[in-house]
Amino acid sequence: MDAVLTLNAGSSSLKFSVYEAGTQAGQGPAKLLGGQIEPLGPAARLTLDDARETRVTEIGPAGMGEAIGTILVTLERRLAGRAVVAVGHRIVHGGAEFDRPVRLTPDVLKRLEAFEPLAPLHQPHNLAGVAAAEIAFPDALQVGCFDTAFHRGHPWVNDTFALPAHLYEEGVRRYGFHGLSYDYIASRLAEDWPELARGRVVVAHLGNGASMCAMSGGRSIASTMGFSALDGLPMGTRSGQLDPGVLLYLLEKGEGPESIARMLYRESGLLGLSGISHDMRTLLASSDPAAARAIEYYTFRIRREIGAMAAALGGIDGLVFTGGVGRNAAPVRTMALAGLDFLGLKLDPEANRNGAERIGIGAAEILALETDEEGVIARACFRTIAAD
Amino acid sequence: MDAVLTLNAGSSSLKFSVYEAGTQAGQGPAKLLGGQIEPLGPAARLTLDDARETRVTEIGPAGMGEAIGTILVTLERRLAGRAVVAVGHRIVHGGAEFDRPVRLTPDVLKRLEAFEPLAPLHQPHNLAGVAAAEIAFPDALQVGCFDTAFHRGHPWVNDTFALPAHLYEEGVRRYGFHGLSYDYIASRLAEDWPELARGRVVVAHLGNGASMCAMSGGRSIASTMGFSALDGLPMGTRSGQLDPGVLLYLLEKGEGPESIARMLYRESGLLGLSGISHDMRTLLASSDPAAARAIEYYTFRIRREIGAMAAALGGIDGLVFTGGVGRNAAPVRTMALAGLDFLGLKLDPEANRNGAERIGIGAAEILALETDEEGVIARACFRTIAAD
Repeated sequence: MDAVLTLNAGSSSLKFSVYEAGTQAGQGPAKLLGGQIEPLGPAARLTLDDARETRVTEIGPAGMGEAIGTILVTLERRLAGRAVVAVGHRIVHGGAEFDRPVRLTPDVLKRLEAFEPLAPLHQPHNLAGVAAAEIAFPDALQVGCFDTAFHRGHPWVNDTFALPAHLYEEGVRRYGFHGLSYDYIASRLAEDWPELARGRVVVAHLGNGASMCAMSGGRSIASTMGFSALDGLPMGTRSGQLDPGVLLYLLEKGEGPESIARMLYRESGLLGLSGISHDMRTLLASSDPAAARAIEYYTFRIRREIGAMAAALGGIDGLVFTGGVGRNAAPVRTMALAGLDFLGLKLDPEANRNGAERIGIGAAEILALETDEEGVIARACFRTIAAD
Repeated sequence: MDAVLTLNAGSSSLKFSVYEAGTQAGQGPAKLLGGQIEPLGPAARLTLDDARETRVTEIGPAGMGEAIGTILVTLERRLAGRAVVAVGHRIVHGGAEFDRPVRLTPDVLKRLEAFEPLAPLHQPHNLAGVAAAEIAFPDALQVGCFDTAFHRGHPWVNDTFALPAHLYEEGVRRYGFHGLSYDYIASRLAEDWPELARGRVVVAHLGNGASMCAMSGGRSIASTMGFSALDGLPMGTRSGQLDPGVLLYLLEKGEGPESIARMLYRESGLLGLSGISHDMRTLLASSDPAAARAIEYYTFRIRREIGAMAAALGGIDGLVFTGGVGRNAAPVRTMALAGLDFLGLKLDPEANRNGAERIGIGAAEILALETDEEGVIARACFRTIAAD
């Protein structure tokens, strides 16, 4: 029996899952186990989840190579003779070029390295994960799955900024991210809400990162995220969209690019506004007015961008919330939708509170769905094996 | 008979108009003449418009002081004994503090100087105009009218960015601009469309600069422009809203803040996208596909932000186009509204083409109105005189 390993390699953690092929026709891959190694560095821990239990083990110093070695050893004990035939990598940036999963040949890897300046906080770690996996699993196919790929078909007006045209040619484009999540939601809609899937749907992926995607007939035509993972909605610690004049002002005041980048990526968003936490659960549980204000702002911005995405689509047939916050935080959904009846978006308060998937009672459908980015990677791996 | 002089002092031009009080109750001030001196510098020209003619005179070298001296001499010949009792100044930035026109006392001027870092391209020139006018018209009241004032009442969610809270306290806020234009439109609606004025109206000021204002009951509750005049919609040469990651990328590449600022203010927008012109009339007349693409982008962004502003208002009862492009460019309005029927925004093609003020036939009103920022300043002056 063949198995597939999915990896999500970041700067401080390595997340992984193992899948086997579905045993019946039409069935998706079945997840066997998952876990993560974090923090990468002098005192790493392995967390392992399977159907029975969650186990945490101190593994001592581990960089990317040691972390993947640890996964190799762990799987040898756990996979009972199954062979890892493919490793699927979540890679943030596929540039303007890669619009689907791809075998990571040396040539492809060289092209992906060229995108490092476009995503300096993610791409180098993603590619370090590939290099380590090639050593640990030399006989497996290495497959790259891109957060940008799902958006590659969107029209030029949502692919560019109003900058001198040479910058667009140079790669300053609105790539959009969270594509694996949107891809999953699109396939879920096609399966369970086929009529809606053919219509105009806004998907709000609200997690640590957050963005929205406007889909028409299952394809992305617009996204709130642009060139980098900073654009669009505010996030746990990221600013989201920002007047470029603010950066010019901070530079004029003598702040350096590094300190500005640190502030925009790590000290802004819900954390910056509240001064309390980046975590929506903490803020929802807090009685501090600053927590309430941060949530009010976060949900206002979601509401504003739902309007913008609906305009980009020329109307809206449905709205899907997904990601950790989107799927689980009923009060966030309630606040985000306040006053959007005019778009046909009307919540069923009880269904919303109870965590149902279908939570709308207006003219437009409202759904709250789990996402499954790893499942999308696993499927891509099995498809790549089949085509190999 | 008393007269009022309005001044709009920029880096390269000084625009002015002269008004006298309306002679009947309820009547607004009447414009006697207007004109501009530009370019300020070694070879300035005075353009003078009155009811009869437009006359252009070479006046040689003129900085701000000489330019206002020229206006003084010109008015002495033209005003036939009327005295300039007040000078009304368009001042871009009133900070978080000034929410209405104000007498420019030494104390007020000192506070306005403190806002220079917030609007370095405009505020110093505006204040240089005040200093020169105090010398040329020592007996007149000096009155400041702010582009930010109309937005001062908008709720906190549209007054802040998702940045660490100390920056908000420091003045990094979403001030909003074009307030004199929105103020005029609000008063025009109250006069001629009183029911609409009480409702939810999106106003698109499309000129050299461009922004949108969401008004509820005649008050601004949101604007697409934020901290600087760079935010929101793309403009003739300005980028509008931009992923902050693009600035970090350009800095990382070694570009300096000055060259980035120059690009964002002067080489972007319609000019940057088309490579042809910042001027909508030129682009509309061009058969170059790059011109068509730039217009397509510009109108897409307007459409997107109409949706966003409608969401901020919880619905839309009317849309007003104003500013040079907004009032005059029928094809821009047509393209901007494509697909917005779902908001009740449906153009009457013939009324739109013919330059009518009322151009909608859907559930929401659509208007295309001249704006009159100088008229707003003149009224404020006469009110200040009356209260003095």
